[in-house]
Order: sequence, then structure tokens, then C-alpha cells
Amino acid sequence: MSDEFGGSNASDEPGGARERRYHVDGELIPAGEATVRVDDRGFRYGDAAFETLRAYGGAIFEWDAHADRLERTCETLAMDHGRSRADLRARIDETLDANDLTDAYVRLSITRGVQPGKLTPRSEVDPTVVVVVKPLPRGGLDGEPVWDGPATVRTVETRRIPDEAVPAGAKTHNYLNGILARTELRGSDADEALLCDLDGNLAEGATSNVCFVDDGTLHTPSTDGPVLPGITRRVVLELAEAADVPVREGRYVPEDLRNADEAFLTNTTWELRPVDAVDGRRVGGGPVAERLTRLFDERVDERCY
Amino acid sequence: MSDEFGGSNASDEPGGARERRYHVDGELIPAGEATVRVDDRGFRYGDAAFETLRAYGGAIFEWDAHADRLERTCETLAMDHGRSRADLRARIDETLDANDLTDAYVRLSITRGVQPGKLTPRSEVDPTVVVVVKPLPRGGLDGEPVWDGPATVRTVETRRIPDEAVPAGAKTHNYLNGILARTELRGSDADEALLCDLDGNLAEGATSNVCFVDDGTLHTPSTDGPVLPGITRRVVLELAEAADVPVREGRYVPEDLRNADEAFLTNTTWELRPVDAVDGRRVGGGPVAERLTRLFDERVDERCY
Repeated sequence: MSDEFGGSNASDEPGGARERRYHVDGELIPAGEATVRVDDRGFRYGDAAFETLRAYGGAIFEWDAHADRLERTCETLAMDHGRSRADLRARIDETLDANDLTDAYVRLSITRGVQPGKLTPRSEVDPTVVVVVKPLPRGGLDGEPVWDGPATVRTVETRRIPDEAVPAGAKTHNYLNGILARTELRGSDADEALLCDLDGNLAEGATSNVCFVDDGTLHTPSTDGPVLPGITRRVVLELAEAADVPVREGRYVPEDLRNADEAFLTNTTWELRPVDAVDGRRVGGGPVAERLTRLFDERVDERCY
Repeated sequence: MSDEFGGSNASDEPGGARERRYHVDGELIPAGEATVRVDDRGFRYGDAAFETLRAYGGAIFEWDAHADRLERTCETLAMDHGRSRADLRARIDETLDANDLTDAYVRLSITRGVQPGKLTPRSEVDPTVVVVVKPLPRGGLDGEPVWDGPATVRTVETRRIPDEAVPAGAKTHNYLNGILARTELRGSDADEALLCDLDGNLAEGATSNVCFVDDGTLHTPSTDGPVLPGITRRVVLELAEAADVPVREGRYVPEDLRNADEAFLTNTTWELRPVDAVDGRRVGGGPVAERLTRLFDERVDERCY
């Protein structure tokens, strides 16, 4: 899961939305008037695939990986929306242009549109395509990170939905599992909830993948479990391997994380975000997290500038 | 789960929606223009509670039970929407009046509305309340049932989401679990998917509860498992007990259903719908199902006319 927009750099003031324009069904619409029909399956059922993307200097970071994952989500949902990758990309670019944005948060959603009032989806789909953007200045090599500060994390009772029920690899508008996890944090100082699978193994944060470092090895829960194959996660693992940091994808329990030397969360918006504390136990970032953050920033530089 | 609208009596022709009016955020709006903002959490995350109701002769059948369940769903979602039961009911009644409907399908939804772009919901909620209606003539004592014919049912690979991940008692806009189950039926003659829990026990249909009769006893999966406490299910169990039909809520496997003397599905729209076949094995309705159907029709008569 990864759909978080936040941090002090994020321009989410009420006035901002009035000026902004979103892309809905082929048209650029003022954000406050950008709507979908209540009969749309995206509203009725959360029957929609989406991706959160980052534009840096006008370029979409890891576009191919996001487009691939969106395609896999649509395959899982048996949603043959008929829109090409180039078409979707053009809508994103038009939206960024219309808002005069080069550094932005982008959310691309595709729903199965309006169909007769049955749960069973029809094969013929007239999809609803929505592009939402918000200004999001790059942190980058010398800048400030997008998050307010390191994360404070808590493991929660809510368990991650098993793949047998809804595959975790599908990034959809059905987000209540993560919302229930986050509501468990009320009254605590934590700002990210860590979900375990039904057997008590560490899965992921409500909107992030989790990584930790122990004795110099980078560990992260394997996507064999109910874990979203995060794109930032994958880039970080690649960068670690290229930098000769030992990497292990495995099965862990929260205790492993609490005892780690370093820990950080990854998602498209946060990039790498250090974990200050887990369940009240101080963990913090460290040299490996810092090195990977620098390598990540360099990768963004290479690819987007 | 129970959100199906269908059958030959259902007025779902494209022209119908043009004339119809829905209730959105306090206003009656032509159905085709009834929308929610793409920033609404109901669209972004399926972060919404809902109920499917039936109006018979202008009266809402089992209103208190639906309002109670909606309240429980909102509690599960930690959504304190601040709208009274009377307020919600008034919106339903206004919508029925505006459409000159006395026999209708009604869908009442409450979302957490638009909030800043974070997954964590805020406690202060300005909810979006939506009422969708469609004409649905009563089958009733001498009429035709609302479904096209008996159900053909198939058990599917998709497993029901366990309560530890998202409680089955919460009726929400996160419906992909049922949609994935239904898409498994493509290419078969089945029109309802039967989901088991992770241990292979029978749970429920994608939009219905399942009941079966064996040696004169009425059986249905217990709501201790991941089973929506259907209101039609509960009414049927009460009617059975009052009529001295032995009732057992328990744990069953699909084989129990395939070997049953009679089987039927329940939901608000279908009422009681006989099951013709399960996994290709003929089951059918029978005397107990017919008797309970008659008692159900009489109950609607008593309560709504």
C-alpha cells in the first residue's frame, strides 16, 4: 500500500484546490468540480485501480514500473479498460502542464465506469480515468525531505488482507484495511501503522513498505507475503545490491524491527523515511539508510534531470 | 454482503436513470448528474458505509435493523458522521417521494467526505450522504419474484476477507472481494459466487447469505465466521423458529450444501431465492424454502401494508 500525501512541503491548503485542475474522463476540470457519478463503480464498490506517481522536474519517475503495476492490477481485477499506456501518460502530462507543475504528486485512477446495477462487472468497460495532481517540491540532494520528520510506527491489531481474499499486489481504491489500521493509532503519537499478516509476520505499513538494517544487512518482508511490491522499495533494493549492501527479503516479526540497528519506510511520496521509534522503542535511521537515501536522490537526478 | 439489483422486474433501462433523481448531500439531483468529488474519501478509498433497503408500499422494510447495522458499520470505521437516524430516513423518504416511488430498491451511503490528502481519517467529518433509488415492484404473495430465476451457484477460489483484516459485519464500499469472486464465474453458467473462509468453511455469497435444509433442519453459516449478518437472513431464521422449523447456525463446508435437500440465498433485494444447482450438482428449493418464502411475504404484508 502506498498512497500518502503529506509533510510540510505539501501544498494542501484549501485555496490550492480552487486553483488546481484535475483530469476527469478526458477533460481538465477545476479540482473542486472534478467529480464522478455516484453510479460509477469506482464510487459504489471502490472498483478501481490506481497509481501514485511523482513528477520531478517534469519527468515521471519510474513511469514504466508504475504503468506495469497498473496493468497487473487491472489484470487482477479483470478490467480491460482499453486505454493505452501512451493515452494514460498523455493525460498525466496534460494535467501537469495545465497546472504549470513540474514537481508534483500525481494520482492516476481507472474505474470500471458506470454499468447496470449488478456487482458482476461487464467485460465491456467504458472506464473513468482520473488524474489528480498536487504541488510537491522535490527534497532531493540538498533539499528538505517531503515528510514532516521521521516516522513513529506502531504495530496494530488489524491484519493485512491475505492474498487469497484480495491480492496485495493489486493497488485499488479498496483502502479500508489500511484505514482501520490507521484509526488504531488515535490517541498515540504514531503516524504510521504497521500491519502483520494473519500469522503475525510483519507485512507492511498502511501506506508504505518497511525496511530495516541489522548487522549491515538490509532486510524487508518478502512479497511472497501480503505485501505491495512497492516501486520505491524495489529501487532501494536494487541500489543496495549495486552498492554491495547485503539484501535479504524474508519473513520477520515485529520484534526483529524493534531490535534493528536502523529502520526506514518507503513509498513514492515519502521516498525513504527514517523510523524514529517502533512500538515506543527507539530505532532511528543510520549510515545505511543515509547512504541509500543519497543513492536514491542520485537515481532521481540521473533519470529525471 | 448484499448489494444486488437485478432481475427482469428491475427497471434499469438507460432511459430510467435520466428521469430519476438521487439525493446527494441534501439535494435532489437528476441521477445522471448525481456525483461526488474525486477528492471524496468515498471515491479515493471506498471509505463509506452503506445499506441496501427495500421500500414496499412506501414503507421501508426493517428500517430499524438497517439503521442499527449502519451505525455498527460506522462504529467499525470510526466514522462519527453526526447525522441522526431521522435525518437519514427523511432523505430516503424525500427521494422516494421525488421519484413517485412506493416499491423500490434504495441504497443509502455515507462517506467521510473530502478531507486533506492523507489516509488517516480526521475525527471531524463533513459526510457525503447519497441516496440512490430504483423502481422495484414487489413480488409478494401472488406476484413474481424479483430475480430472473433460481440461482446457479459456484464455489470460487477467492476467500472471504477474515474479520481480523476487515470485519465482515461492516457493510462498506470496499467490494472488490466479492467482485473478484464474481469474475471467477466468467464462462460458467453460475450467477452467484460462494466464498469460503480461509479454512475452507462456507461463508456466504458475493451479495447474499446462504441457507440450506437437511432432514427438515434449516442450516446457515454462523456469523462467528466472516459472514455479513444479513437482515433478510435474520428475519428468515426468526420466521423459521416461530414456525417450529429447527434452525442451526454452524460451520459447514461446500459439500454440505451440495448434498442438501433444499438451498436458497437471501438478501434484501432477492428476499429468498432458491438455489438450482451448486457446483453443477442439482439442489433446488423445496417445501421448507417455499414455506419460509410465504411467511416472509406475510411478514412484509404485516409490516409494510
